[in-house]
Amino acid sequence: MQVIRGRVASRVLVAGDRLPSIRALAAETGVSPSTVVEAYDRLVAEGVIRARRGSGFYVCATALPPLALAQEIAPKERDIDPFWVSRQSLDADPQALKPGCGWLPADWMPAEAIRKGMRALARSGDGALVDYGSTRGSVALRRIISRRLAADGVETAPDQLLLTASGTSAIDLVCRFVLRPGDTVVVDDPCYFNFRALLRAHQVKIVGVPYTPSGPDIERFEAVLAAERPKLYVTNNGLHNPTGAMVSAQTAHRVLSALTAHDVTIIEDDIFADFAPEPVPHLAGLDGLDRVVRIGSFSKTVSASLRCGYIAARPDWIEGLIDLQIAAGFGGPSPAATEIVAGVLAGGGYRRHIEELQRKLARAQGETAVALGQIGIEPWILPRGGFNLWGQLPDGADSAQVARTALVDAVIAAPGNVYSASGTAGRFMRFNVAQCGDPKIFAVLEKAIRSQTG
Amino acid sequence: MQVIRGRVASRVLVAGDRLPSIRALAAETGVSPSTVVEAYDRLVAEGVIRARRGSGFYVCATALPPLALAQEIAPKERDIDPFWVSRQSLDADPQALKPGCGWLPADWMPAEAIRKGMRALARSGDGALVDYGSTRGSVALRRIISRRLAADGVETAPDQLLLTASGTSAIDLVCRFVLRPGDTVVVDDPCYFNFRALLRAHQVKIVGVPYTPSGPDIERFEAVLAAERPKLYVTNNGLHNPTGAMVSAQTAHRVLSALTAHDVTIIEDDIFADFAPEPVPHLAGLDGLDRVVRIGSFSKTVSASLRCGYIAARPDWIEGLIDLQIAAGFGGPSPAATEIVAGVLAGGGYRRHIEELQRKLARAQGETAVALGQIGIEPWILPRGGFNLWGQLPDGADSAQVARTALVDAVIAAPGNVYSASGTAGRFMRFNVAQCGDPKIFAVLEKAIRSQTG
Repeated sequence: MQVIRGRVASRVLVAGDRLPSIRALAAETGVSPSTVVEAYDRLVAEGVIRARRGSGFYVCATALPPLALAQEIAPKERDIDPFWVSRQSLDADPQALKPGCGWLPADWMPAEAIRKGMRALARSGDGALVDYGSTRGSVALRRIISRRLAADGVETAPDQLLLTASGTSAIDLVCRFVLRPGDTVVVDDPCYFNFRALLRAHQVKIVGVPYTPSGPDIERFEAVLAAERPKLYVTNNGLHNPTGAMVSAQTAHRVLSALTAHDVTIIEDDIFADFAPEPVPHLAGLDGLDRVVRIGSFSKTVSASLRCGYIAARPDWIEGLIDLQIAAGFGGPSPAATEIVAGVLAGGGYRRHIEELQRKLARAQGETAVALGQIGIEPWILPRGGFNLWGQLPDGADSAQVARTALVDAVIAAPGNVYSASGTAGRFMRFNVAQCGDPKIFAVLEKAIRSQTG
Repeated sequence: MQVIRGRVASRVLVAGDRLPSIRALAAETGVSPSTVVEAYDRLVAEGVIRARRGSGFYVCATALPPLALAQEIAPKERDIDPFWVSRQSLDADPQALKPGCGWLPADWMPAEAIRKGMRALARSGDGALVDYGSTRGSVALRRIISRRLAADGVETAPDQLLLTASGTSAIDLVCRFVLRPGDTVVVDDPCYFNFRALLRAHQVKIVGVPYTPSGPDIERFEAVLAAERPKLYVTNNGLHNPTGAMVSAQTAHRVLSALTAHDVTIIEDDIFADFAPEPVPHLAGLDGLDRVVRIGSFSKTVSASLRCGYIAARPDWIEGLIDLQIAAGFGGPSPAATEIVAGVLAGGGYRRHIEELQRKLARAQGETAVALGQIGIEPWILPRGGFNLWGQLPDGADSAQVARTALVDAVIAAPGNVYSASGTAGRFMRFNVAQCGDPKIFAVLEKAIRSQTG
């Protein structure tokens, strides 16, 4: 029974699939045929499988979720997998403290500019309020994105930009476009946990390359490309998530050269671009938009409620991606929402907003590093910008266990292994310095660590 | 801003040049320093100039004239495939007539209620404007959907509803959840063309069952289930797209019985529910939410710009679908947009809006049927509601060719075979009666038909 349940849960067997014959499974598992008969009968009684006269046993459509992305249990009890931080953070009680969440507090965002844009949109014509909009999305926003990319040295023609429902949707669309189940994809180790969740949904093999303070470990990177022949490399440059590191120009060049030599497609997620205090090397800047697909979003600096992302890529790819986005969503972001985002970005106040964010984040980085040091958590590096701080726990502490314990005290932490394809970050945690203002966070974490290290 | 733009355009200022100080330019142009600050900020936002902290403003190397994004690259040359109608309609010139498009004219939609909702949202707290929102989406909107489903005899618990980025996204999520490449899926023939586009993206085998004025041809339906062993049946009840037919209670019962006997999962798309003048049999109403997954959206009756759809399904499936939606999009619809939709639906004006729509549509159905009759196009049936009319062209006319010819005169038609998995609807066209008010449409179609039939 466990064998069959396992295969259903892991999607080796999905709804409608025929089960192995009794003789075959008996031989395979080394139990007697009568034991297999008994097991199949019980699974039938449980409604997991059904018998078709004369043609064997089949998995029921109503048995289990065929796509076992995670156990179907309440988020609070679920395993600490790549979904754990997202679901805890998104569905947190308003009172919960969220040092592990991946966005800024609401009062750090430009809400007044959004209110202004919303009132302006309410005064515009009916079309902007009720129509689907064009397949590529808001012209005003794409013009702004073009200028921002040009400032990074990435020239885009009008037919090289597509707006999407979110930055994650942008990555997902490109993955659907280039990947097939069983392909191999390279990620940084550690990398943003949702890259792992998304790639798992695409049923590909995920290979991590250790990340250093100046980018991927280039020797390991080249070795993995040679050995694994991956289709795709997914990374976020600008500021790396979760470490806050910046890739060096030399490493970026060598990474791109290696990927070019092995003909690998690249998704460069630049969602933290506006937090970088200085120009940062970009693969898209070195490559243009040949094998690099640049994606981004405004959820971190404008609004996550006005959901909108974008893809900058080769024109022929954009044409295919437009079809795919119509087939899978009949369009991208809310046209109304994107008009508001465009208004905020075009307003003169946006630059001041970003400069103030950078000042506040620099202060919060310093204060958080000090507070963490006092409870024995050492920053891996001191990032030059952004809100992520990658901290190492004291010897003997397991960050997953610490996160579980802290959750009881309504503190949502981000344990290291959700970011690690190799599961080697058990002593690390990602901290969002903008969410670390409350001293209770450090008291709760210290208690949780003590309970392990004594 | 004009002064600086002019100097950049006339090369008085070139890349890297330092701009006049704010005080100097204010004195020179006789405007206030704060006006110059605002102008410089906007120029920075546009990427024409950039600020170097402590040393003033400089002309960007990338100060380019704005890209001509306005003119879109509409794929007018492409084959008439399931994407043809969508892309022509979505990227149409404002002057084009769109009898083939799948939505109501902007001035038929409740724009005033949306404006009111937008102004109300602009007065609400920061969170609603900038946060990601919960994994299931707006509680207010889910409550409303729950009540509407209950009125259809479908009881839902709070954990059986999930908001999605659109109705199409809802279908796509469920397909990703239950389908694997190579699976077989049954659709109606004809069916909504984007079902075919979406299923093609999932790389499954599509089998169509002829649709009659009272629903699927039940003998053929049962035969296909027995022969093809499909995983899924995708349909839209309420009002069928493209024919506007309503399934009969007897047919609905027999269809569901056959699907149950063969253990097939069902996606019931109910997007046209609010157009039905009377209660319509629903598979979800007969089955509950056991093997039927009910999806819907508000793009046809509230706004397509405030994109939002929903899934009603078994609780254990919803848990898996939430994970999938986080992995693939990091959430569903724009929380801001869904709050506005919820406000419109909750307002007393919505019922009156729908009643007036039904009156206007009934009138338009009659007038369009007459106008089509005069050019030899015979309605397949006279639908009891909605905006779709499925018309048969005169003998010898091919609707794909008619659509191509009409496009030259800026009339976007919907040829029958984009709806037909078997390619047997070459003499049919779908007409949106709400978009058929202009007599030019019928003149252009008549000319296009004559050019074939002589």
